[in-house]
Amino acid sequence: MPIHAELLCVGNELLIGKTLNTNAQWLAKRLTTLGLEVKRITTIGDNIEEIAETLKEALQRKPKILITTGGLGPTFDDKTLEGIAKALNRSLEINQEAYKMVEEKYRTYVKEGKIEKFELTPHRVKMAKLPEDSKPLPNPIGTAPGVLLRHKDTLIIALPGVPSEMKAIFDESVAALVRKQAQNVTFFETSIYVDGIVESEIAPLIDEVMRDNPYVYIKSHPKGVKKKPHIEIHLSTTAKDSTTAKKRITKTLMQISDLIRVKGGKTRVPKRVKQEG
Amino acid sequence: MPIHAELLCVGNELLIGKTLNTNAQWLAKRLTTLGLEVKRITTIGDNIEEIAETLKEALQRKPKILITTGGLGPTFDDKTLEGIAKALNRSLEINQEAYKMVEEKYRTYVKEGKIEKFELTPHRVKMAKLPEDSKPLPNPIGTAPGVLLRHKDTLIIALPGVPSEMKAIFDESVAALVRKQAQNVTFFETSIYVDGIVESEIAPLIDEVMRDNPYVYIKSHPKGVKKKPHIEIHLSTTAKDSTTAKKRITKTLMQISDLIRVKGGKTRVPKRVKQEG
Repeated sequence: MPIHAELLCVGNELLIGKTLNTNAQWLAKRLTTLGLEVKRITTIGDNIEEIAETLKEALQRKPKILITTGGLGPTFDDKTLEGIAKALNRSLEINQEAYKMVEEKYRTYVKEGKIEKFELTPHRVKMAKLPEDSKPLPNPIGTAPGVLLRHKDTLIIALPGVPSEMKAIFDESVAALVRKQAQNVTFFETSIYVDGIVESEIAPLIDEVMRDNPYVYIKSHPKGVKKKPHIEIHLSTTAKDSTTAKKRITKTLMQISDLIRVKGGKTRVPKRVKQEG
Repeated sequence: MPIHAELLCVGNELLIGKTLNTNAQWLAKRLTTLGLEVKRITTIGDNIEEIAETLKEALQRKPKILITTGGLGPTFDDKTLEGIAKALNRSLEINQEAYKMVEEKYRTYVKEGKIEKFELTPHRVKMAKLPEDSKPLPNPIGTAPGVLLRHKDTLIIALPGVPSEMKAIFDESVAALVRKQAQNVTFFETSIYVDGIVESEIAPLIDEVMRDNPYVYIKSHPKGVKKKPHIEIHLSTTAKDSTTAKKRITKTLMQISDLIRVKGGKTRVPKRVKQEG
Protein backbone atom coordinates (compact mmCIF):
# COMPACT_ATOMS: atom_id res chain seq x y z
CA MET A 1 0.00 0.00 0.00
CA PRO A 2 1.38 3.42 -0.91
CA ILE A 3 2.03 5.86 1.92
CA HIS A 4 -0.58 8.60 2.31
CA ALA A 5 0.65 12.17 1.75
CA GLU A 6 -1.08 15.55 1.60
CA LEU A 7 -0.16 19.06 0.51
CA LEU A 8 -1.26 22.33 2.07
CA CYS A 9 -0.50 25.35 -0.11
CA VAL A 10 -0.67 28.73 1.59
CA GLY A 11 -0.95 32.02 -0.28
CA ASN A 12 -3.54 34.62 -1.27
CA GLU A 13 -1.82 34.86 -4.66
CA LEU A 14 -3.06 31.32 -5.39
CA LEU A 15 -6.64 32.14 -4.39
CA ILE A 16 -6.87 35.25 -6.57
CA GLY A 17 -5.41 33.39 -9.55
CA LYS A 18 -2.34 35.61 -9.72
CA THR A 19 -0.02 32.64 -9.39
CA LEU A 20 -0.32 29.21 -11.02
CA ASN A 21 0.29 26.54 -8.38
CA THR A 22 3.30 24.87 -10.00
CA ASN A 23 4.60 23.96 -6.53
CA ALA A 24 1.68 21.58 -6.00
CA GLN A 25 2.29 19.85 -9.32
CA TRP A 26 6.04 19.56 -8.75
CA LEU A 27 5.64 18.14 -5.25
CA ALA A 28 2.80 15.81 -6.28
CA LYS A 29 4.92 14.38 -9.07
CA ARG A 30 8.00 13.98 -6.88
CA LEU A 31 6.08 12.33 -4.05
CA THR A 32 4.26 10.00 -6.46
CA THR A 33 7.53 9.05 -8.12
CA LEU A 34 9.01 8.35 -4.70
CA GLY A 35 6.17 5.85 -4.12
CA LEU A 36 3.72 7.94 -2.06
CA GLU A 37 0.05 8.53 -2.74
CA VAL A 38 -0.96 12.20 -2.58
CA LYS A 39 -4.61 12.07 -1.53
CA ARG A 40 -5.47 15.72 -1.17
CA ILE A 41 -4.10 19.16 -2.03
CA THR A 42 -5.64 22.06 -0.10
CA THR A 43 -5.00 25.70 -0.97
CA ILE A 44 -5.82 28.46 1.49
CA GLY A 45 -4.95 32.10 2.11
CA ASP A 46 -2.49 33.87 4.40
CA ASN A 47 -4.66 33.58 7.48
CA ILE A 48 -3.58 32.00 10.77
CA GLU A 49 -7.04 30.59 11.58
CA GLU A 50 -7.40 29.03 8.13
CA ILE A 51 -3.92 27.53 8.26
CA ALA A 52 -4.49 26.08 11.74
CA GLU A 53 -7.93 24.77 10.77
CA THR A 54 -6.89 23.07 7.52
CA LEU A 55 -3.80 21.61 9.20
CA LYS A 56 -5.91 20.10 11.99
CA GLU A 57 -8.35 18.69 9.43
CA ALA A 58 -5.47 17.16 7.46
CA LEU A 59 -3.91 15.63 10.60
CA GLN A 60 -7.21 13.92 11.39
CA ARG A 61 -6.84 12.03 8.10
CA LYS A 62 -3.48 10.74 9.41
CA PRO A 63 -1.16 11.24 6.44
CA LYS A 64 2.41 10.04 6.96
CA ILE A 65 3.76 13.10 5.18
CA LEU A 66 2.16 16.55 5.19
CA ILE A 67 3.97 19.24 3.23
CA THR A 68 3.07 22.92 3.39
CA THR A 69 4.27 25.50 0.88
CA GLY A 70 4.45 29.25 1.33
CA GLY A 71 4.32 31.68 4.23
CA LEU A 72 7.81 31.32 5.74
CA GLY A 73 9.29 34.71 4.82
CA PRO A 74 9.86 37.95 6.74
CA THR A 75 6.65 39.87 5.96
CA PHE A 76 3.49 40.24 8.07
CA ASP A 77 1.56 37.88 5.83
CA ASP A 78 4.00 34.97 6.19
CA LYS A 79 1.90 33.13 8.74
CA THR A 80 2.39 29.42 8.15
CA LEU A 81 4.52 28.74 11.23
CA GLU A 82 2.12 30.66 13.44
CA GLY A 83 -0.72 28.59 11.99
CA ILE A 84 1.14 25.32 12.59
CA ALA A 85 2.03 26.35 16.16
CA LYS A 86 -1.60 27.21 16.83
CA ALA A 87 -2.91 23.95 15.36
CA LEU A 88 -0.48 21.86 17.44
CA ASN A 89 -0.80 24.02 20.54
CA ARG A 90 2.94 24.67 20.60
CA SER A 91 4.70 27.94 21.29
CA LEU A 92 6.64 29.78 18.61
CA GLU A 93 10.18 30.40 19.82
CA ILE A 94 13.56 31.37 18.44
CA ASN A 95 15.26 28.18 17.29
CA GLN A 96 19.00 28.55 17.80
CA GLU A 97 19.92 26.44 14.78
CA ALA A 98 17.54 28.42 12.56
CA TYR A 99 18.80 31.67 14.04
CA LYS A 100 22.36 30.77 13.02
CA MET A 101 21.20 29.89 9.50
CA VAL A 102 19.44 33.25 9.09
CA GLU A 103 22.36 35.16 10.65
CA GLU A 104 24.81 33.44 8.33
CA LYS A 105 22.70 34.38 5.28
CA TYR A 106 22.66 38.08 6.13
CA ARG A 107 26.42 38.06 6.82
CA THR A 108 26.85 36.60 3.34
CA TYR A 109 24.49 39.20 1.82
CA VAL A 110 26.67 41.97 3.35
CA LYS A 111 29.84 40.41 1.88
CA GLU A 112 28.16 40.09 -1.50
CA GLY A 113 26.97 43.72 -1.35
CA LYS A 114 23.29 42.76 -1.44
CA ILE A 115 22.64 44.67 1.77
CA GLU A 116 24.64 47.50 3.30
CA LYS A 117 25.02 46.56 6.92
CA PHE A 118 24.48 43.46 9.02
CA GLU A 119 21.51 43.78 11.32
CA LEU A 120 19.06 41.20 12.66
CA THR A 121 15.81 43.19 12.58
CA PRO A 122 12.60 41.73 14.07
CA HIS A 123 11.42 40.84 10.54
CA ARG A 124 14.59 38.80 9.99
CA VAL A 125 14.49 37.13 13.41
CA LYS A 126 10.88 36.14 12.60
CA MET A 127 12.21 33.57 10.09
CA ALA A 128 14.04 31.79 12.96
CA LYS A 129 10.93 31.56 15.16
CA LEU A 130 9.74 27.98 14.82
CA PRO A 131 7.15 25.90 16.65
CA GLU A 132 8.70 24.07 19.66
CA ASP A 133 10.50 20.84 18.79
CA SER A 134 11.10 21.73 15.17
CA LYS A 135 14.17 21.17 13.09
CA PRO A 136 15.16 23.83 10.54
CA LEU A 137 16.06 22.61 7.05
CA PRO A 138 18.80 24.64 5.34
CA ASN A 139 17.70 26.85 2.46
CA PRO A 140 20.53 26.75 -0.11
CA ILE A 141 19.00 29.56 -2.19
CA GLY A 142 17.01 31.97 -0.03
CA THR A 143 16.84 33.11 3.57
CA ALA A 144 13.95 31.37 5.31
CA PRO A 145 14.80 27.82 6.42
CA GLY A 146 12.33 24.98 5.83
CA VAL A 147 10.89 23.38 8.95
CA LEU A 148 10.48 19.74 9.94
CA LEU A 149 8.37 18.59 12.86
CA ARG A 150 6.50 15.50 13.91
CA HIS A 151 2.97 15.20 15.24
CA LYS A 152 2.06 11.65 16.24
CA ASP A 153 2.70 9.56 13.09
CA THR A 154 2.78 12.52 10.71
CA LEU A 155 5.92 14.25 9.50
CA ILE A 156 5.05 17.90 8.85
CA ILE A 157 7.40 19.67 6.47
CA ALA A 158 7.03 23.42 5.86
CA LEU A 159 8.66 24.70 2.66
CA PRO A 160 8.86 28.24 1.24
CA GLY A 161 6.60 29.36 -1.60
CA VAL A 162 9.37 30.56 -3.92
CA PRO A 163 9.64 27.57 -6.28
CA SER A 164 13.45 27.49 -6.53
CA GLU A 165 13.81 27.54 -2.73
CA MET A 166 11.05 24.97 -2.23
CA LYS A 167 12.66 22.58 -4.71
CA ALA A 168 16.18 23.06 -3.33
CA ILE A 169 15.12 22.30 0.26
CA PHE A 170 13.06 19.32 -0.91
CA ASP A 171 15.94 17.82 -2.86
CA GLU A 172 18.54 18.51 -0.20
CA SER A 173 16.66 17.56 2.97
CA VAL A 174 13.22 16.09 2.29
CA ALA A 175 13.58 13.55 -0.55
CA ALA A 176 15.69 11.18 1.56
CA LEU A 177 13.16 11.27 4.43
CA VAL A 178 10.30 10.53 2.05
CA ARG A 179 12.18 7.70 0.37
CA LYS A 180 12.72 6.10 3.77
CA GLN A 181 8.95 6.15 4.41
CA ALA A 182 8.12 4.65 1.05
CA GLN A 183 10.53 1.76 0.79
CA ASN A 184 9.93 -0.80 -1.93
CA VAL A 185 7.26 1.06 -3.81
CA THR A 186 7.69 2.08 -7.44
CA PHE A 187 5.35 4.22 -9.50
CA PHE A 188 5.26 3.58 -13.23
CA GLU A 189 3.32 5.36 -15.96
CA THR A 190 2.98 5.66 -19.70
CA SER A 191 0.58 7.09 -22.29
CA ILE A 192 -0.68 6.19 -25.73
CA TYR A 193 -2.31 8.63 -28.10
CA VAL A 194 -5.45 7.60 -29.94
CA ASP A 195 -7.03 9.15 -33.02
CA GLY A 196 -10.29 8.61 -34.85
CA ILE A 197 -12.41 7.29 -31.98
CA VAL A 198 -14.40 9.26 -29.38
CA GLU A 199 -13.98 8.91 -25.62
CA SER A 200 -17.40 7.32 -25.16
CA GLU A 201 -16.33 4.48 -27.51
CA ILE A 202 -13.14 3.93 -25.52
CA ALA A 203 -14.94 3.97 -22.15
CA PRO A 204 -16.27 0.35 -22.32
CA LEU A 205 -12.85 -0.88 -23.55
CA ILE A 206 -11.17 0.70 -20.50
CA ASP A 207 -13.73 -1.00 -18.25
CA GLU A 208 -12.90 -4.37 -19.83
CA VAL A 209 -9.12 -3.96 -19.65
CA MET A 210 -9.21 -2.70 -16.06
CA ARG A 211 -11.23 -5.76 -15.04
CA ASP A 212 -8.41 -7.92 -16.45
CA ASN A 213 -5.64 -5.74 -14.96
CA PRO A 214 -6.83 -4.64 -11.55
CA TYR A 215 -3.55 -3.05 -10.51
CA VAL A 216 -3.30 -0.72 -13.47
CA TYR A 217 -5.19 2.56 -13.45
CA ILE A 218 -6.29 3.75 -16.90
CA LYS A 219 -7.55 7.23 -17.53
CA SER A 220 -8.55 8.86 -20.81
CA HIS A 221 -7.85 12.54 -21.42
CA PRO A 222 -9.68 14.04 -24.43
CA LYS A 223 -7.45 16.48 -26.27
CA GLY A 224 -10.08 17.99 -28.52
CA VAL A 225 -12.47 16.83 -31.23
CA LYS A 226 -12.04 19.71 -33.67
CA LYS A 227 -11.66 17.60 -36.77
CA LYS A 228 -11.20 14.07 -35.49
CA PRO A 229 -11.20 13.01 -31.84
CA HIS A 230 -7.71 12.92 -30.29
CA ILE A 231 -7.34 11.27 -26.90
CA GLU A 232 -4.50 10.48 -24.53
CA ILE A 233 -4.79 7.25 -22.60
CA HIS A 234 -2.69 7.29 -19.46
CA LEU A 235 -1.74 4.06 -17.68
CA SER A 236 -0.16 3.96 -14.24
CA THR A 237 0.61 1.46 -11.53
CA THR A 238 2.35 1.24 -8.16
CA ALA A 239 4.28 -1.96 -7.51
CA LYS A 240 6.93 -3.47 -5.24
CA ASP A 241 9.58 -3.36 -7.93
CA SER A 242 10.03 -1.83 -11.33
CA THR A 243 10.10 -5.16 -13.21
CA THR A 244 6.62 -6.03 -11.97
CA ALA A 245 5.38 -2.52 -12.68
CA LYS A 246 6.78 -2.50 -16.19
CA LYS A 247 5.39 -5.94 -17.03
CA ARG A 248 1.93 -4.93 -15.87
CA ILE A 249 1.95 -1.71 -17.85
CA THR A 250 3.26 -3.38 -21.02
CA LYS A 251 0.63 -6.15 -20.90
CA THR A 252 -2.17 -3.65 -20.29
CA LEU A 253 -0.90 -1.29 -22.97
CA MET A 254 -0.95 -4.05 -25.59
CA GLN A 255 -4.44 -5.19 -24.62
CA ILE A 256 -6.02 -1.72 -24.74
CA SER A 257 -4.21 -0.84 -27.99
CA ASP A 258 -5.49 -4.01 -29.67
CA LEU A 259 -9.08 -3.32 -28.60
CA ILE A 260 -8.91 0.28 -29.79
CA ARG A 261 -7.55 -0.75 -33.19
CA VAL A 262 -10.35 -3.33 -33.59
CA LYS A 263 -12.83 -0.48 -32.99
CA GLY A 264 -11.20 1.54 -35.78
CA GLY A 265 -9.01 3.83 -33.68
CA LYS A 266 -5.41 4.58 -34.53
CA THR A 267 -2.92 4.28 -31.68
CA ARG A 268 0.47 5.84 -31.36
CA VAL A 269 2.54 4.12 -28.70
CA PRO A 270 5.48 6.08 -27.28
CA LYS A 271 8.89 4.68 -28.20
CA ARG A 272 9.48 3.24 -24.75
CA VAL A 273 7.62 2.77 -21.52
CA LYS A 274 8.75 5.74 -19.51
CA GLN A 275 9.89 5.56 -15.92
CA GLU A 276 9.81 8.75 -13.90
CA GLY A 277 12.37 9.71 -11.28
CA MET B 1 -18.03 42.11 1.89
CA PRO B 2 -16.98 39.91 -1.00
CA ILE B 3 -19.03 36.77 -1.60
CA HIS B 4 -17.40 33.51 -0.43
CA ALA B 5 -16.56 30.98 -3.15
CA GLU B 6 -14.71 27.65 -3.16
CA LEU B 7 -13.31 25.31 -5.80
CA LEU B 8 -13.24 21.53 -5.71
CA CYS B 9 -10.96 20.03 -8.37
CA VAL B 10 -11.42 16.33 -9.09
CA GLY B 11 -8.84 14.20 -10.88
CA ASN B 12 -6.10 11.67 -10.12
CA GLU B 13 -4.00 13.36 -12.81
CA LEU B 14 -3.73 16.41 -10.52
CA LEU B 15 -2.67 14.32 -7.51
CA ILE B 16 0.08 12.47 -9.37
CA GLY B 17 1.42 15.72 -10.82
CA LYS B 18 0.71 14.69 -14.39
CA THR B 19 -1.45 17.75 -14.99
CA LEU B 20 -0.85 21.33 -13.84
CA ASN B 21 -4.06 22.70 -12.34
CA THR B 22 -4.54 25.62 -14.71
CA ASN B 23 -8.32 25.30 -14.26
CA ALA B 24 -8.03 26.37 -10.61
CA GLN B 25 -5.99 29.43 -11.51
CA TRP B 26 -8.29 30.43 -14.36
CA LEU B 27 -11.43 30.08 -12.24
CA ALA B 28 -9.85 31.78 -9.21
CA LYS B 29 -8.88 34.75 -11.35
CA ARG B 30 -12.28 35.00 -13.02
CA LEU B 31 -14.20 34.72 -9.75
CA THR B 32 -11.94 37.29 -8.05
CA THR B 33 -12.33 39.68 -10.96
CA LEU B 34 -16.10 39.24 -10.76
CA GLY B 35 -15.90 40.39 -7.13
CA LEU B 36 -15.93 37.07 -5.24
CA GLU B 37 -13.46 35.86 -2.63
CA VAL B 38 -12.16 32.35 -3.27
CA LYS B 39 -11.35 31.05 0.20
CA ARG B 40 -10.29 27.51 -0.48
CA ILE B 41 -9.30 25.25 -3.38
CA THR B 42 -9.43 21.52 -2.66
CA THR B 43 -8.03 18.90 -5.03
CA ILE B 44 -8.98 15.25 -4.66
CA GLY B 45 -8.94 12.04 -6.72
CA ASP B 46 -11.55 10.21 -8.77
CA ASN B 47 -13.21 8.60 -5.79
CA ILE B 48 -16.90 8.87 -4.91
CA GLU B 49 -16.34 8.82 -1.14
CA GLU B 50 -13.67 11.54 -1.34
CA ILE B 51 -15.82 13.71 -3.60
CA ALA B 52 -18.85 13.36 -1.32
CA GLU B 53 -16.77 13.97 1.80
CA THR B 54 -14.97 17.10 0.54
CA LEU B 55 -18.21 18.48 -0.87
CA LYS B 56 -19.97 18.05 2.47
CA GLU B 57 -17.05 19.71 4.25
CA ALA B 58 -17.16 22.63 1.81
CA LEU B 59 -20.93 23.05 2.21
CA GLN B 60 -20.50 23.32 5.98
CA ARG B 61 -18.40 26.43 5.36
CA LYS B 62 -21.44 27.88 3.51
CA PRO B 63 -19.89 29.32 0.34
CA LYS B 64 -22.34 31.11 -1.96
CA ILE B 65 -20.66 29.55 -5.00
CA LEU B 66 -19.00 26.13 -5.10
CA ILE B 67 -17.49 25.11 -8.42
CA THR B 68 -16.22 21.61 -9.15
CA THR B 69 -13.99 20.76 -12.12
CA GLY B 70 -13.47 17.35 -13.70
CA GLY B 71 -15.19 14.00 -13.63
CA LEU B 72 -18.22 14.61 -15.91
CA GLY B 73 -17.24 12.44 -18.89
CA PRO B 74 -18.28 8.99 -20.09
CA THR B 75 -15.61 6.79 -18.46
CA PHE B 76 -15.80 4.73 -15.26
CA ASP B 77 -13.62 7.23 -13.40
CA ASP B 78 -15.84 10.24 -14.10
CA LYS B 79 -17.47 10.21 -10.68
CA THR B 80 -18.20 13.79 -9.74
CA LEU B 81 -21.97 13.66 -10.19
CA GLU B 82 -22.20 10.40 -8.25
CA GLY B 83 -20.18 12.06 -5.48
CA ILE B 84 -22.42 15.14 -5.45
CA ALA B 85 -25.58 12.98 -5.43
CA LYS B 86 -24.21 10.98 -2.51
CA ALA B 87 -23.23 14.09 -0.53
CA LEU B 88 -26.66 15.67 -0.99
CA ASN B 89 -28.54 12.43 -0.58
CA ARG B 90 -30.17 12.81 -3.99
CA SER B 91 -30.73 10.16 -6.62
CA LEU B 92 -28.92 10.21 -9.93
CA GLU B 93 -31.43 10.11 -12.76
CA ILE B 94 -31.62 10.75 -16.46
CA ASN B 95 -32.29 14.45 -16.93
CA GLN B 96 -34.40 14.92 -20.09
CA GLU B 97 -32.83 18.26 -20.99
CA ALA B 98 -29.32 16.86 -20.56
CA TYR B 99 -30.30 13.74 -22.51
CA LYS B 100 -31.35 15.90 -25.45
CA MET B 101 -28.08 17.82 -25.31
CA VAL B 102 -26.02 14.62 -25.38
CA GLU B 103 -28.21 13.08 -28.09
CA GLU B 104 -27.86 16.20 -30.24
CA LYS B 105 -24.05 16.10 -29.89
CA TYR B 106 -23.77 12.52 -31.13
CA ARG B 107 -26.12 13.23 -34.05
CA THR B 108 -23.79 16.10 -34.98
CA TYR B 109 -20.72 13.83 -34.60
CA VAL B 110 -22.31 11.38 -37.07
CA LYS B 111 -22.97 14.19 -39.56
CA GLU B 112 -19.41 15.42 -39.18
CA GLY B 113 -18.04 11.92 -39.66
CA LYS B 114 -16.46 11.79 -36.19
CA ILE B 115 -18.36 8.61 -35.36
CA GLU B 116 -19.85 6.04 -37.73
CA LYS B 117 -23.32 5.45 -36.41
CA PHE B 118 -25.66 7.11 -33.97
CA GLU B 119 -26.09 5.08 -30.80
CA LEU B 120 -26.74 6.14 -27.21
CA THR B 121 -24.63 3.57 -25.34
CA PRO B 122 -24.75 3.35 -21.52
CA HIS B 123 -21.47 5.30 -21.35
CA ARG B 124 -23.03 8.13 -23.33
CA VAL B 125 -26.29 8.12 -21.40
CA LYS B 126 -24.17 8.35 -18.22
CA MET B 127 -23.38 11.99 -19.10
CA ALA B 128 -27.09 12.83 -18.91
CA LYS B 129 -27.57 11.26 -15.46
CA LEU B 130 -27.68 14.19 -13.07
CA PRO B 131 -28.54 14.54 -9.38
CA GLU B 132 -32.29 15.27 -8.89
CA ASP B 133 -33.25 18.91 -9.33
CA SER B 134 -30.25 19.83 -11.44
CA LYS B 135 -30.10 22.01 -14.50
CA PRO B 136 -27.71 21.02 -17.31
CA LEU B 137 -25.51 23.79 -18.73
CA PRO B 138 -24.83 23.48 -22.48
CA ASN B 139 -21.29 22.48 -23.45
CA PRO B 140 -20.50 24.40 -26.66
CA ILE B 141 -17.29 22.43 -27.27
CA GLY B 142 -17.53 18.89 -25.89
CA THR B 143 -20.18 16.36 -25.01
CA ALA B 144 -20.74 16.37 -21.24
CA PRO B 145 -23.01 19.22 -20.08
CA GLY B 146 -22.09 21.25 -17.00
CA VAL B 147 -24.46 20.95 -14.06
CA LEU B 148 -26.07 23.57 -11.85
CA LEU B 149 -27.84 22.79 -8.59
CA ARG B 150 -28.67 24.53 -5.37
CA HIS B 151 -28.19 23.29 -1.83
CA LYS B 152 -29.55 25.71 0.79
CA ASP B 153 -27.76 29.01 0.08
CA THR B 154 -25.02 27.47 -2.06
CA LEU B 155 -25.02 27.30 -5.84
CA ILE B 156 -23.09 24.20 -6.87
CA ILE B 157 -21.72 24.27 -10.40
CA ALA B 158 -20.03 21.19 -11.87
CA LEU B 159 -17.78 21.86 -14.87
CA PRO B 160 -15.74 19.44 -17.02
CA GLY B 161 -11.98 19.05 -16.53
CA VAL B 162 -11.03 19.72 -20.16
CA PRO B 163 -9.96 23.39 -19.93
CA SER B 164 -11.55 24.58 -23.19
CA GLU B 165 -14.91 23.04 -22.23
CA MET B 166 -14.72 24.31 -18.65
CA LYS B 167 -14.02 27.87 -19.84
CA ALA B 168 -16.71 27.80 -22.54
CA ILE B 169 -19.43 26.67 -20.12
CA PHE B 170 -18.27 29.20 -17.52
CA ASP B 171 -18.39 32.09 -19.97
CA GLU B 172 -21.67 31.04 -21.54
CA SER B 173 -23.71 30.05 -18.49
CA VAL B 174 -21.89 30.70 -15.20
CA ALA B 175 -20.36 34.19 -15.40
CA ALA B 176 -23.75 35.93 -15.45
CA LEU B 177 -24.95 33.95 -12.41
CA VAL B 178 -21.80 34.85 -10.50
CA ARG B 179 -22.01 38.51 -11.45
CA LYS B 180 -25.55 38.60 -10.07
CA GLN B 181 -24.30 37.28 -6.71
CA ALA B 182 -21.48 39.79 -6.51
CA GLN B 183 -23.18 43.05 -7.41
CA ASN B 184 -21.28 46.26 -6.79
CA VAL B 185 -17.93 44.74 -5.95
CA THR B 186 -14.81 45.48 -7.97
CA PHE B 187 -11.41 43.88 -7.59
CA PHE B 188 -8.40 45.98 -8.52
CA GLU B 189 -4.71 45.07 -8.56
CA THR B 190 -1.34 46.28 -9.68
CA SER B 191 2.34 45.49 -9.14
CA ILE B 192 5.61 47.39 -8.86
CA TYR B 193 9.01 45.83 -9.30
CA VAL B 194 11.76 46.67 -6.87
CA ASP B 195 15.51 46.20 -7.22
CA GLY B 196 18.43 46.60 -4.85
CA ILE B 197 16.67 45.97 -1.56
CA VAL B 198 15.94 42.65 0.17
CA GLU B 199 12.47 41.48 1.23
CA SER B 200 13.27 41.77 4.95
CA GLU B 201 13.99 45.50 4.44
CA ILE B 202 10.68 45.98 2.65
CA ALA B 203 8.70 44.06 5.30
CA PRO B 204 8.50 46.93 7.88
CA LEU B 205 7.61 49.40 5.10
CA ILE B 206 4.69 47.22 4.06
CA ASP B 207 3.54 47.07 7.68
CA GLU B 208 3.58 50.86 7.86
CA VAL B 209 1.78 51.43 4.56
CA MET B 210 -0.89 48.81 5.32
CA ARG B 211 -1.60 50.51 8.66
CA ASP B 212 -2.31 53.72 6.71
CA ASN B 213 -4.29 51.94 3.97
CA PRO B 214 -6.30 49.23 5.69
CA TYR B 215 -8.31 48.27 2.58
CA VAL B 216 -5.30 47.55 0.41
CA TYR B 217 -3.56 44.20 0.63
CA ILE B 218 0.16 44.33 -0.11
CA LYS B 219 2.22 41.23 -0.72
CA SER B 220 5.88 40.93 -1.67
CA HIS B 221 7.04 38.17 -4.02
CA PRO B 222 10.83 37.67 -4.12
CA LYS B 223 11.95 36.90 -7.65
CA GLY B 224 15.50 35.82 -6.84
CA VAL B 225 18.60 37.36 -5.26
CA LYS B 226 21.20 36.00 -7.68
CA LYS B 227 23.08 39.25 -8.15
CA LYS B 228 20.86 41.87 -6.61
CA PRO B 229 17.51 41.27 -4.93
CA HIS B 230 14.53 41.60 -7.28
CA ILE B 231 11.07 41.72 -5.77
CA GLU B 232 7.53 42.15 -7.03
CA ILE B 233 5.17 44.07 -4.77
CA HIS B 234 1.56 43.28 -5.49
CA LEU B 235 -1.24 45.58 -4.33
CA SER B 236 -4.90 44.64 -4.46
CA THR B 237 -8.21 45.87 -3.14
CA THR B 238 -11.91 45.13 -3.36
CA ALA B 239 -14.23 48.14 -3.42
CA LYS B 240 -17.79 49.18 -4.25
CA ASP B 241 -16.74 50.90 -7.44
CA SER B 242 -13.69 51.13 -9.63
CA THR B 243 -13.03 54.84 -8.93
CA THR B 244 -12.65 54.16 -5.22
CA ALA B 245 -10.53 51.08 -5.89
CA LYS B 246 -8.23 52.91 -8.28
CA LYS B 247 -7.80 55.88 -5.94
CA ARG B 248 -6.87 53.61 -3.05
CA ILE B 249 -4.36 51.64 -5.09
CA THR B 250 -2.77 54.76 -6.56
CA LYS B 251 -2.35 56.42 -3.16
CA THR B 252 -0.87 53.25 -1.63
CA LEU B 253 1.40 52.67 -4.60
CA MET B 254 2.89 56.16 -4.29
CA GLN B 255 3.43 55.81 -0.57
CA ILE B 256 5.18 52.43 -0.72
CA SER B 257 7.29 53.51 -3.71
CA ASP B 258 8.48 56.63 -1.86
CA LEU B 259 9.45 54.65 1.25
CA ILE B 260 11.32 52.06 -0.82
CA ARG B 261 13.27 54.75 -2.69
CA VAL B 262 14.23 56.41 0.62
CA LYS B 263 15.66 53.04 1.71
CA GLY B 264 17.78 52.88 -1.46
CA GLY B 265 15.58 50.58 -3.53
CA LYS B 266 14.81 51.24 -7.17
CA THR B 267 11.17 50.95 -8.20
CA ARG B 268 9.70 50.37 -11.59
CA VAL B 269 6.03 51.29 -11.74
CA PRO B 270 3.96 49.80 -14.55
CA LYS B 271 2.74 52.31 -17.10
CA ARG B 272 -0.83 52.28 -15.83
CA VAL B 273 -2.77 50.81 -12.98
CA LYS B 274 -4.27 47.72 -14.49
CA GLN B 275 -7.88 46.70 -14.15
CA GLU B 276 -8.76 43.09 -14.71
CA GLY B 277 -11.94 41.85 -16.32
